[in-house]
Amino acid sequence: MKNFLPRSIQRLSEILSSLPGVGPKTANRLTFYLLSLSQEELARFGESFADLKKDLVVCSLCRVISESDPCLICNDPTRDIGQLAIVEEALDVLALEKARFRGRYHVLGGQISPLNNVGPNDLTIDDLLDRLTKEKIEEIILATDPSLEGEATALYIDEQIKIAQRSKKIAANLVVTRLARGLPVGGDLEYADELTLSRAIEGRRTYKD
Amino acid sequence: MKNFLPRSIQRLSEILSSLPGVGPKTANRLTFYLLSLSQEELARFGESFADLKKDLVVCSLCRVISESDPCLICNDPTRDIGQLAIVEEALDVLALEKARFRGRYHVLGGQISPLNNVGPNDLTIDDLLDRLTKEKIEEIILATDPSLEGEATALYIDEQIKIAQRSKKIAANLVVTRLARGLPVGGDLEYADELTLSRAIEGRRTYKD
Repeated sequence: MKNFLPRSIQRLSEILSSLPGVGPKTANRLTFYLLSLSQEELARFGESFADLKKDLVVCSLCRVISESDPCLICNDPTRDIGQLAIVEEALDVLALEKARFRGRYHVLGGQISPLNNVGPNDLTIDDLLDRLTKEKIEEIILATDPSLEGEATALYIDEQIKIAQRSKKIAANLVVTRLARGLPVGGDLEYADELTLSRAIEGRRTYKD
Repeated sequence: MKNFLPRSIQRLSEILSSLPGVGPKTANRLTFYLLSLSQEELARFGESFADLKKDLVVCSLCRVISESDPCLICNDPTRDIGQLAIVEEALDVLALEKARFRGRYHVLGGQISPLNNVGPNDLTIDDLLDRLTKEKIEEIILATDPSLEGEATALYIDEQIKIAQRSKKIAANLVVTRLARGLPVGGDLEYADELTLSRAIEGRRTYKD
C-alpha cells in the first residue's frame, strides 16, 4: 500500500517507528515534517545521531553516562558526599537533579524483575556495597521506582546492607532511607488511588513541620 | 540543572524536542533509549536523516514527493485516470492509498487560512485548474480536511471550477464530489459530536444501498 513512497521516506519512517512510543502514524507525520527542513538541518540531525555515543564513558563510581570518569557529579566538590541516592536508571538522575538533590548517585542499571530475567547480579548492587565500605557515606536514599519491582529492589538492597553491617563490613551508623510516598503535588485528592492515599495517611507529618 | 549531561546527549535531546509532538521529557526518554543501541544502528539512523531528501523531486503533475517525475502514482497505468482526489498534504495521499483509492491525486500544499497568511495563490489551485483543462478527468473528489479551513478551501476550488466551466475552459460534464461526512466506523454513536451526527442524518443512505 505504501510502496509509492520514496525509499528514503519509507526507511526513515520505519526507523522512527522503531522508537519506543512512536507508532507508524506518528513516524510518518514526523518524516513528512522532517521533509520541510533544510538539508543542513537534516545533516545536523544525522550527525547528532551518529555522534551520540562518541566520547561517552560510564562513570566507574556511580555508573552514570558521562564524558569523563569520574563523572561531573562525582567530581563536583560542592556535592554532599555523605548522601547517596540509589536509582534504577540514568534518567532518574536527571529527575533528581531537577528536584535539586545535592548528594551523589548510584545507578543500579535496572530493577530486580524475575519476569524479565533480571536478578540482583545483573545490577550494580555489589559495586554499591563495595562503595559503602570505602566511601564516607552517611545516608543512602533508596530512590527506586514506587512499583512492585522497585520496592523489591529497595528491599533487597536494604537486606544486603543489613547483612554487611552485621558482619561489620559496612559502618553500623549508615542510615538507609527511602523517598516519601504520598499525594503528588498539584494533584487532586479525589483522584488519588487508595494505596497512595493510605501511604499518605501513614506518612502524615506535623503541620508546619 | 541539566548540565551534568554529556553534550552529545543534550544536543540530540534538544534536536528531538524540536520535532512536533515531542516534549523535553519524551526527547530525553528517546535519547536514553538510543544510547542502548549499537554504534552501527545509530550510524544508520544518522544516515537516514541526512539522506532523507537525496534524490527526491516533487511530481510536476500531482505535487507528491517522489523519486521520479511523474511520480509512481501518476505513471501507473492501472490507475483510474478519470478520478482525481484533491488533498491538502502528501500525508493525505498516504491515508487515501491505505483506503484503497485507485484514482490519482492533486496535492494543494495546504489549506486556505487567512489567520496563517495562506491565500489561494499559495496553493497549487492554478495548477489544478490547468490540469482540468488538459487531462481527461471526469470527477474530482474534494478530500480536504473536514475542518473550517478545509471546507473553505473546498468551497473556493468548487467556485473556481464553476467559473472555468462557465467560460468553457473546463468541460461542463466534470463532476465535483466530496468525501462523505458521518459516523466514523468503529465509533460510538453516543460520543459523536452534534455536527457529525447531524451530517450523518443529512447524508443517510437507503439500507443495503
